[in-house]
Amino acid sequence: MAVVTLLTDFGTRDPYGGIMKGVILSLSPGTVIVDISHEVEAHDVREGAFLIPEYYPYFPSGTVHVAVVDPTVGSRRRPIAVVKDGHVFIGPDNGIFTLLFTPPVQTYMLEEIPCPRVRRSATFHGRDLFAPAAAEVARGLDPSLLGPPVSDPVFLDGMKAAVYGDRLVGEVIRFDRFGNAITNIDGETVRAFSAGKTIGISLAGLRFPGLSRTYCDGDRTCLVGSNGYIECALYCGNLRATYGIKKGDRVTVTAEGPEGPIT
Amino acid sequence: MAVVTLLTDFGTRDPYGGIMKGVILSLSPGTVIVDISHEVEAHDVREGAFLIPEYYPYFPSGTVHVAVVDPTVGSRRRPIAVVKDGHVFIGPDNGIFTLLFTPPVQTYMLEEIPCPRVRRSATFHGRDLFAPAAAEVARGLDPSLLGPPVSDPVFLDGMKAAVYGDRLVGEVIRFDRFGNAITNIDGETVRAFSAGKTIGISLAGLRFPGLSRTYCDGDRTCLVGSNGYIECALYCGNLRATYGIKKGDRVTVTAEGPEGPIT
Amino acid sequence: MAVVTLLTDFGTRDPYGGIMKGVILSLSPGTVIVDISHEVEAHDVREGAFLIPEYYPYFPSGTVHVAVVDPTVGSRRRPIAVVKDGHVFIGPDNGIFTLLFTPPVQTYMLEEIPCPRVRRSATFHGRDLFAPAAAEVARGLDPSLLGPPVSDPVFLDGMKAAVYGDRLVGEVIRFDRFGNAITNIDGETVRAFSAGKTIGISLAGLRFPGLSRTYCDGDRTCLVGSNGYIECALYCGNLRATYGIKKGDRVTVTAEGPEGPIT
Repeated sequence: MAVVTLLTDFGTRDPYGGIMKGVILSLSPGTVIVDISHEVEAHDVREGAFLIPEYYPYFPSGTVHVAVVDPTVGSRRRPIAVVKDGHVFIGPDNGIFTLLFTPPVQTYMLEEIPCPRVRRSATFHGRDLFAPAAAEVARGLDPSLLGPPVSDPVFLDGMKAAVYGDRLVGEVIRFDRFGNAITNIDGETVRAFSAGKTIGISLAGLRFPGLSRTYCDGDRTCLVGSNGYIECALYCGNLRATYGIKKGDRVTVTAEGPEGPIT
Repeated sequence: MAVVTLLTDFGTRDPYGGIMKGVILSLSPGTVIVDISHEVEAHDVREGAFLIPEYYPYFPSGTVHVAVVDPTVGSRRRPIAVVKDGHVFIGPDNGIFTLLFTPPVQTYMLEEIPCPRVRRSATFHGRDLFAPAAAEVARGLDPSLLGPPVSDPVFLDGMKAAVYGDRLVGEVIRFDRFGNAITNIDGETVRAFSAGKTIGISLAGLRFPGLSRTYCDGDRTCLVGSNGYIECALYCGNLRATYGIKKGDRVTVTAEGPEGPIT
Repeated sequence: MAVVTLLTDFGTRDPYGGIMKGVILSLSPGTVIVDISHEVEAHDVREGAFLIPEYYPYFPSGTVHVAVVDPTVGSRRRPIAVVKDGHVFIGPDNGIFTLLFTPPVQTYMLEEIPCPRVRRSATFHGRDLFAPAAAEVARGLDPSLLGPPVSDPVFLDGMKAAVYGDRLVGEVIRFDRFGNAITNIDGETVRAFSAGKTIGISLAGLRFPGLSRTYCDGDRTCLVGSNGYIECALYCGNLRATYGIKKGDRVTVTAEGPEGPIT
């Protein structure tokens, strides 16, 4: 049984996610459809781009992942399918698939899928283009038959933390429900950067003493989150609300001493 | 595999939608259940009524659509099933199915469905009456066997925009997540009303210059939304919040010149 | 087809619920997964504990119910499986299963499930431990093979209302979307306590005149909710917002006269 996942910024109040499911089930009965989230911040392509590598590896090979954060829907931006690691990704060519573009990867432009439509729209490609394409792939269509190869998909810059002098500098990418601040600094990069020394982490004037293992190792903790990236948390509290932290706030890692108390 | 959809105003915080799914899966194992929305505004039967024609045509023929916005649950209002276009609709007879009542249509009163119940309640017909009825139809029961025909289902007035003198007048019905204001003025009616002339659209003191094709055709745009109705939007912004627009605000279309700049 | 339900405090914005579904579908293809709620109040184990008996009886026998409200994830708290009434419950041993611990019941500690993992984490046992265990049970593993029996699972005190002198005293446990205040005073206990007399209910200085049958029997009503517990409501209004009622507010039932006007 094929699996299709949905990631959008449509919200859960409107019927848009449900309508996409109706289209998929009409064209490919029996498909298992999983909502990842419909609450990517509205129009925030970058947040969507960061989420994709966090969930797709946990799905069966062959899963079709539809991702629609698409502020310029209806313009000339291309609709594409990306094939990576045995998974297929379908959505707009606006950078949302940036973190998939390390070889080997194949990208195809979606040409129009012939399918029964109630009405057509320039503003709901999730329903009229991406869901039908996902259904066809779920039914067994080879993604390379969706359209011609694309050699220059849109790639967003500045997605990863970088070393400046003696600092590793990243930023807050999103918050989870608990108000934990999730950064774009991955644990492996910190390990290489610190080379065994004690590290300190700064965010919005707050100092965090190295990396903890769990949220309950201290009042204010930084740890390598379940997605492999550094996150900053307040135990049984909400760091975001308590300290007024915002998306895009700078996070700085420094290496300070010969040994770390907790690593 | 039968499909059942759920539209309610129960919210997603409480277990009520999940409980309805448990009832359906107990009575009709293997049914595919799709959430349309559980966030219709609390008690707003009219908003629910507008949503139904927006999603049901995208589902396979034979789908059972449960719709529960039901402020008078437990009173004498009747529970009904409506058969339209090969789809079956189940919910309270309070006007939520108004937009389905154009012939041919059949309506039946739901008599009690015998089914195993943990407890009974006068306040959760979604669980104790509508979900069991939907499960029986999903399993193959002919809807005409659910109960006697109903010849006078509740019909809500004033659902559609209307022409007054030289104006086509409607209202804001709901907002989507982006703050776009969705009206009850459908694109076909505007086309007939304007008869090829330039149109102007007014909402809450704002003027919109005719109809655009996409959200990025201007700063402030009106367009025919994916549901076929006029919606007003702010490009990469939130029209509702920026201008304090409210549900029920009047929307006026006027025909102004010989030709429209964008249609 | 096996059914797995999910109850968490992860929220619906983040991909965490979707990731758990990917893990389950990878290990046990074809499993039907139902969201109960991902919006238990963050870290509120007690609210989660109250919800479990409200939904599980409506699911087919053999259903696996995963419940993750887990503020001390990664600490020494045990992961457990509870077998009760032919259903299997999987989650942390922090009291969330308190209301299941009436005999007959079996409890097992979860030992590590061998399964393919993309990465390991001390902070996402929903993904790395509970979802794999649920998938194995969904595939047919006998829960007693998950690990050794547990004889002393964590049990939360003070979950039920109690009689003090001439009063039955409970509290507000949670609010539903409509702002109705749901208490821990169950209808059977009220019936036994009142012994046929008229009852009065007090909450935050408000008096409610006995029990109604439906929300529309008065402006302010108390009734036995669909879960069997007393709830207090404002007809077509929001009791919580209107009167500033809070979780934990005391609810007092008194027996006042020889006969009740409404029971």
